[in-house]
Amino acid sequence: MHGLFISFEGGEGVGKSTQIARLADRLRGHGHEVIVTLEPGGTPLGTELRRLVLNPDGHVTPRAEALLYAADRAHHVDTVIEPALAAGKVVITDRYADSSLAYQGVGRALDPQQMRELCEFAVGGRWPEVTILLDVDPIVGLRRARGDGAGDRIEAEGLEFHKAVRAAFLDLAGQDPDRFVVVDASGSLDEVAQRVRVAVDRHLESLPGATR
Amino acid sequence: MHGLFISFEGGEGVGKSTQIARLADRLRGHGHEVIVTLEPGGTPLGTELRRLVLNPDGHVTPRAEALLYAADRAHHVDTVIEPALAAGKVVITDRYADSSLAYQGVGRALDPQQMRELCEFAVGGRWPEVTILLDVDPIVGLRRARGDGAGDRIEAEGLEFHKAVRAAFLDLAGQDPDRFVVVDASGSLDEVAQRVRVAVDRHLESLPGATR
Repeated sequence: MHGLFISFEGGEGVGKSTQIARLADRLRGHGHEVIVTLEPGGTPLGTELRRLVLNPDGHVTPRAEALLYAADRAHHVDTVIEPALAAGKVVITDRYADSSLAYQGVGRALDPQQMRELCEFAVGGRWPEVTILLDVDPIVGLRRARGDGAGDRIEAEGLEFHKAVRAAFLDLAGQDPDRFVVVDASGSLDEVAQRVRVAVDRHLESLPGATR
Repeated sequence: MHGLFISFEGGEGVGKSTQIARLADRLRGHGHEVIVTLEPGGTPLGTELRRLVLNPDGHVTPRAEALLYAADRAHHVDTVIEPALAAGKVVITDRYADSSLAYQGVGRALDPQQMRELCEFAVGGRWPEVTILLDVDPIVGLRRARGDGAGDRIEAEGLEFHKAVRAAFLDLAGQDPDRFVVVDASGSLDEVAQRVRVAVDRHLESLPGATR
């Protein structure tokens, strides 16, 4: 028996948590057991690591930070995701390895090939059956994240960063079209939820007999 | 300006800390600035990570543990070792990446090639100019570590493990003979110190003008 592993990715304000909650509710309504989790911080160890990384008193260098997030991910995979999948559950995670690749790729602090190898090691071969990339113009996303009207005050530098993150995610999606579904996250919550539904449902059809 | 980076490796009871202290004293007597450090736990972050890894209440999975030690190492390299080398100092570390490779290789929990890539990422290209492998029959080492006579009570299983660690270190030394010096760690402290001296001194000769 093997469940279904779904990750949601995307920049700030694309509406991941809202869409994850709606999807989880819908799947539970259909009788599926659903686990909703997140990175970083989906385990007690992860919570401690997140505290270490974000502690403003402690300086953490870029490679050490990447390794701490990778440790969080490895622990998350082994203690949360794998057991749930083995029990036939649907696992929905708010961010996964693609987030590290996209954000690190923009930061350019680290070698992309090494980052990919680090991610491969951290996930231990476990990639989602489907990754929903919620994609929206950063102007729209940032306005959502900061409240209506705030978009006018977004400084150019911040916007360039978020544009680069969006491009990095779309690039990852282009490299792995079998796994990624790019969902247009503009429009109403209902419209986006319907698009997510279409992306997920074809995987659910094969769930009862799915094995690996 | 660039200093000299020396690591000491070997199993339990080979006498690393004693020989490191003697070497550091001698080099300081000759006017060198010397930093003595260790892994894991050579930084405040490392101390916290060591606490997380060793916390008996918290289960840490093998990949997460390897990544936490790698994070400690990356932070140690960036915040302790590199600045000291850049300032022209001699850096002596009690264990470095080779210890991870040797001990993990014996545990066999993780893929050796992935472990090597993880080490490469963690050290960021910084390998010692010279690695002193203090090598001794595990029977002798364990007797030293546990006090005279205790060797009689060493159980066969523990001895097999330490024999495998010794073999793993010798294997690493064989793969990188330009960097490793295998030092016979049997005999008196003075005899071993003299062997270490010979191994290190040829690197010191080039230190004043050393650049990278």
